Amino acid sequence: MSLRCAGDIDTRSLEEMFINLDPIQAGGRLTSEAMKAVIAYADGYSVCDNCQKPARLDAISKPPLATFHKDLAAFVEMDEARLMPGARRGFQAVASSFVNPGDPVLVTSYCHYTTFVAVEVAGGVVYEIAASPDHYSTPDMVAERIEEVIAKTKRTPALLFLEEVDYQYGNVHPVKEMAAVAHQYDIPVLYNGAYTVGIKEVSGADFGVDFVVGSGHKSMAAPAPSGFLATRAEYADVVFRTSKVHGDLTGRNFPVKEVELLGCTLMGNTSVGMMASFPHVKERVKHFDKEVARANKIIDALLSIEGMEVVSEYPRKHTLTRMNSEKCFDPIAKKHKKRGFFLISALRERHVTGIIPGSTKVWKMNSFGLTDRQADWVADAFLEIAEAEGLHVNR
Amino acid sequence: MSLRCAGDIDTRSLEEMFINLDPIQAGGRLTSEAMKAVIAYADGYSVCDNCQKPARLDAISKPPLATFHKDLAAFVEMDEARLMPGARRGFQAVASSFVNPGDPVLVTSYCHYTTFVAVEVAGGVVYEIAASPDHYSTPDMVAERIEEVIAKTKRTPALLFLEEVDYQYGNVHPVKEMAAVAHQYDIPVLYNGAYTVGIKEVSGADFGVDFVVGSGHKSMAAPAPSGFLATRAEYADVVFRTSKVHGDLTGRNFPVKEVELLGCTLMGNTSVGMMASFPHVKERVKHFDKEVARANKIIDALLSIEGMEVVSEYPRKHTLTRMNSEKCFDPIAKKHKKRGFFLISALRERHVTGIIPGSTKVWKMNSFGLTDRQADWVADAFLEIAEAEGLHVNR
Repeated sequence: MSLRCAGDIDTRSLEEMFINLDPIQAGGRLTSEAMKAVIAYADGYSVCDNCQKPARLDAISKPPLATFHKDLAAFVEMDEARLMPGARRGFQAVASSFVNPGDPVLVTSYCHYTTFVAVEVAGGVVYEIAASPDHYSTPDMVAERIEEVIAKTKRTPALLFLEEVDYQYGNVHPVKEMAAVAHQYDIPVLYNGAYTVGIKEVSGADFGVDFVVGSGHKSMAAPAPSGFLATRAEYADVVFRTSKVHGDLTGRNFPVKEVELLGCTLMGNTSVGMMASFPHVKERVKHFDKEVARANKIIDALLSIEGMEVVSEYPRKHTLTRMNSEKCFDPIAKKHKKRGFFLISALRERHVTGIIPGSTKVWKMNSFGLTDRQADWVADAFLEIAEAEGLHVNR
Repeated sequence: MSLRCAGDIDTRSLEEMFINLDPIQAGGRLTSEAMKAVIAYADGYSVCDNCQKPARLDAISKPPLATFHKDLAAFVEMDEARLMPGARRGFQAVASSFVNPGDPVLVTSYCHYTTFVAVEVAGGVVYEIAASPDHYSTPDMVAERIEEVIAKTKRTPALLFLEEVDYQYGNVHPVKEMAAVAHQYDIPVLYNGAYTVGIKEVSGADFGVDFVVGSGHKSMAAPAPSGFLATRAEYADVVFRTSKVHGDLTGRNFPVKEVELLGCTLMGNTSVGMMASFPHVKERVKHFDKEVARANKIIDALLSIEGMEVVSEYPRKHTLTRMNSEKCFDPIAKKHKKRGFFLISALRERHVTGIIPGSTKVWKMNSFGLTDRQADWVADAFLEIAEAEGLHVNR
């Protein structure tokens, strides 16, 4: 029988009971500071107690949301930042501001589905940038695609979405050079930092991008839904434009409300949780090299299993990695009584989880946030399982 | 010195230390069940542990979000419901689906600013429905305005936004009859339930509206940002339409993702908190008559202060009330050493808060959720303050 936290809702104890390698959850686990802040600010409109003129989330000084907004912009070396209910709402705000129906919009072959749907809602037409056989986007591919799109549509793309680190392979792409190409055509560039901001150091200024979007619940140790959109000053009046409407009978108007935000965004524990984790997040990005070293240690151990392949770039430069075990774990799955579930089952017996249940061909893992000891534990777990199933391990 | 929950963030203890009459906070205070669920599911992607095909929030069965989505739709007697990061994102989804640039859209003179900005983002043009001197919208005013708009723009309004209970006066408007008028012109009707769903019983079917939007953090005892959009089956394929785009190079497509939601919406404590409070919320709406009785008791006490006026309809039919104390508290503010702040200051000495600091002319209060004893306490606090300042009270 499981423990219930309320009604028919099981208490979640996954992070307490397992080492969790889930690709999307690794960077979002709350800090203890965020946990305390969440409890103190759990009520819906909790941050609004001291909301004064201008009545807007980014102007509230108690709790210190105004300072936090400035700190966030500085953190990614951009000029202005606003909290958003998830990175996807940042994509939507930019697409809604820059894309007219029928406009071509460039995305990479590795972009997240929310990039597609943000463009789709705005009525834009998505054109993908080609991918190299070893899973990179390159500046040449950006240039080539822009020329193709202009030739085909007689329109310059309205926007380019880039990921420095993609969610599929966790590969590092040359965003600075790619952004520079787009700027030769005056195409605004959005940097999707869902897997980087809060994980590694990110400078929007250095990359020369126009927008930086981050995810609170994916990479900034914050509750969901949370995230932010930062912009260069040049575009702040566009994406953070304020309401221009007047009630035609009452004359009411709302000149402080930012329309793409629908006014305020994160009124409760989402914003305060993100803010409470921020000092830790600012510090941890400085030590990403250690995270990468741990990731490589785990991947090296995995590669000592005969037949195991890493599909991501190697050595690893990020903690999110795609593996291919078709030549080792998959043949075992074919004859195992648990079929493809043998792997997750054996991992869970060893208090490791986060691989998609049933996957024994291509799967992803993210070791972000593990201690050295946990990383060793994970490596050992995989090797033990391999040996128990009769696979050869080059220890 | 204040207690800190994390870093430079003061612990919020307002609900523990005061009886809170804040108009927007009253219905959003968490239940103890929600509080426990928030703690268990504080991590960002906490509800995604058991996400299977189709990979969508409303299909997750553990925690029981799939059942909760069905229960929500049934609760407001509509066909389909989806969680949203706040009611405003529900307005946006409907406006984005039904309003083309330049389309006229009808709103009431009492609509919330988020209605305006949702229409503004979609490129629509807002036309207000007139208000009666005693602060009501009526079916005749709807009909009149529709005819005017059609005559002026040669277009039928794309959408009508209605509130059963408005945020300015807390008055109850005849939404069923207003919706019927709009339907004579085939105008879809959105019912904004930010002050009703979770507070009183609401039947979208009985009102004959096409969409019901509710706010989790305003009226359903849930963390922010949370809310939902419910629709009749007829429009489900429109507002909850799924993605139709294909990657032109990779062929990637995302046919299960609902574009107006940008895929999934509330991945963590926001959805689980709302779900944990739901049994209590379903029960409390049945006892709204007692809430109204308590509100009237407080307002009656206030009206015993000479010069005090109630601006909302009276007797009250809702717990949110607008008062006018220009003839009693305001003259005191003019000569008091604390100026207009004397009122909130005196209230706080008596452990009551939630009136806008500095207001002594027109102000609002919301007694929702108070016990009988707390309601008496609030009434006594006001009368004590009035008498202490030398005002005549007809006890």
